[in-house]
Amino acid sequence: MIQLKDLSIQPLHHEMGADLQYKIDQKAKPVGSLGQVEKIAKQVGLIQGSLTPLLSKPMMLTVAADHHICDEGVSPCPVEITWQQCLNFMNGGGGIGLFSSEFGFDLRVVDAGVNFDFKPHPNLIDAKVRKGTRNFLHEPAMTIEECIQALESGRKIVARINEDGCNVIGFGEMGIGNTTPASALLSVYTGLDVDACVGPGSGLKAEGVKHKAHVIKEAIKLHGISDDPIENLARFGGLEIATIAGGMLEAAARRMIVITDGFITTSALLAAHAIDSKVVDYSFFAHQSQEQGHKKMVDFMGGEPILDLGFRLGEGTGSAVAYSVIKASVAMLNKMTSFDEAAIYNTANDGIRVD
Amino acid sequence: MIQLKDLSIQPLHHEMGADLQYKIDQKAKPVGSLGQVEKIAKQVGLIQGSLTPLLSKPMMLTVAADHHICDEGVSPCPVEITWQQCLNFMNGGGGIGLFSSEFGFDLRVVDAGVNFDFKPHPNLIDAKVRKGTRNFLHEPAMTIEECIQALESGRKIVARINEDGCNVIGFGEMGIGNTTPASALLSVYTGLDVDACVGPGSGLKAEGVKHKAHVIKEAIKLHGISDDPIENLARFGGLEIATIAGGMLEAAARRMIVITDGFITTSALLAAHAIDSKVVDYSFFAHQSQEQGHKKMVDFMGGEPILDLGFRLGEGTGSAVAYSVIKASVAMLNKMTSFDEAAIYNTANDGIRVD
Repeated sequence: MIQLKDLSIQPLHHEMGADLQYKIDQKAKPVGSLGQVEKIAKQVGLIQGSLTPLLSKPMMLTVAADHHICDEGVSPCPVEITWQQCLNFMNGGGGIGLFSSEFGFDLRVVDAGVNFDFKPHPNLIDAKVRKGTRNFLHEPAMTIEECIQALESGRKIVARINEDGCNVIGFGEMGIGNTTPASALLSVYTGLDVDACVGPGSGLKAEGVKHKAHVIKEAIKLHGISDDPIENLARFGGLEIATIAGGMLEAAARRMIVITDGFITTSALLAAHAIDSKVVDYSFFAHQSQEQGHKKMVDFMGGEPILDLGFRLGEGTGSAVAYSVIKASVAMLNKMTSFDEAAIYNTANDGIRVD
Repeated sequence: MIQLKDLSIQPLHHEMGADLQYKIDQKAKPVGSLGQVEKIAKQVGLIQGSLTPLLSKPMMLTVAADHHICDEGVSPCPVEITWQQCLNFMNGGGGIGLFSSEFGFDLRVVDAGVNFDFKPHPNLIDAKVRKGTRNFLHEPAMTIEECIQALESGRKIVARINEDGCNVIGFGEMGIGNTTPASALLSVYTGLDVDACVGPGSGLKAEGVKHKAHVIKEAIKLHGISDDPIENLARFGGLEIATIAGGMLEAAARRMIVITDGFITTSALLAAHAIDSKVVDYSFFAHQSQEQGHKKMVDFMGGEPILDLGFRLGEGTGSAVAYSVIKASVAMLNKMTSFDEAAIYNTANDGIRVD
């Protein structure tokens, strides 16, 4: 097994579970009546090992790369959209540019492998491994060295952000063609039939989806499936997917809160999960993507999406919206009155705060 | 038919539909890829008749009342919780006290019929009709006059808030025992069998749910079902339900955005819908409640809940959280870059905004 250096993800602080549940159950409401908000609050408490967890300096990382599998006609979009949208995002545009500012995230675009020479920009992190993965119908998408480089650069970026005071990280992606590697990884990591893993992506018709499945099946025939998760990631993955996977692993090792977006970002979590399954304990599934394979990924890892808004945009847009629910959950844990505290008003009986 | 004075709800600005859709489709994203956020944005545009709608001074109205149907043992909670929680909310406590401030609402507790004498409080609106509805197993819950008084006071409260600059109103409720009138209204307004309309509420066991259904069936046998929606509301409703229904109708007449919370609040929308079905065009369904009858109400009115977080608390908590999605939707319409605007960066090619 290929190992990432000095990566150690600890279990959640399960010893806090009973105290967290007690605190939640003492809030002035019927037990369990805030549903998923209560579960999220508890998970954040278990991550931080605290009855009063804090959310600090939320950062959105939208990681971008190109995919030469697009030579096989697997996407209806021109590949130039990858770099064009990156520029748009850096300048606050596009879905994630807007949603980051609306929901309180700092946004960085990470160039993990875009087929374009960006000039420096304050919101751009240069982590380019190469100008797009190779066409995996003919050769592995990455060499093992390239794949490890991407994983490690994701780790480094997250480490730096964490050292800067951030403990909440939303992940998103941009990369024309990247539902193809994501579908391939879903099949490879879970053993599901390829046909159950593909979908229309950004707008393929039925014929196109069939073709995408055919390309993936041929590639799996050519490369085979390895016992090593990193080897599989190198064969079928994307540079943004590997960079995100590395970032998620590092975030979990640092007890940060990870927010996973849609189909592509969740395929990165699937890769990270294959490397160390404890990463999932630190992750929140932002939303149920419209891409059929996404539900299968989420179910495979035992997740429960926070939102189901019919999103199929990626970029981190679901992560941004879901954060508002995570924030509310932590506020519930920290600030909502308990029945005991509420009794103050009942005794005072005059609607004026007594304290 | 009993009429409410000077109530006139206009149709949506459907003439703006094509322009709104065009603006949404020009945003830098695949068409339709922001799912429900796009639909919400369009609906807000149709409500306000604007391509650049504004959200102004959001107000949460948590309307409270008691129910002497509780004498029949239909709720496991002590009835004192109604007034105790009202005091808690006024002082920023409880679920809705917290969520209102977290999600940017001003909160007012409306006493529509609580069995308690509140002292004046800046966050309390006194609209008490009587100290709780009558036990509708034996007599109508309200007289027609009381019911109209509650509807009209809801209208007056909303009118005043709107004149103060608010155009977004979230509704919530507090009232021990109020799933019983809500279930009765669901059956009466939709013709569904009573057994399909009842659920555990704040925590009844199977036997209790059966008893609740029995009480409702007996009451329907006693009073019968009228052709007049207000007469039915008087027979089986609650004072908070009638006050909310009046508020919703007035809000729609004033082209305000109405956010409907869970089972009880949606039963008020059902009553308002029976009075004038156009009220639904101005309404957003915040979330899917865990109470089984809620989905039937939503389906009956053709709604689509924004969230499904397993909430069954009421108070307006779902309305508060859902507002963050409505805000994001309006921001998308107003601020997200179009493909044309994004092209600026592509041409400039250097990641620096050119304008």
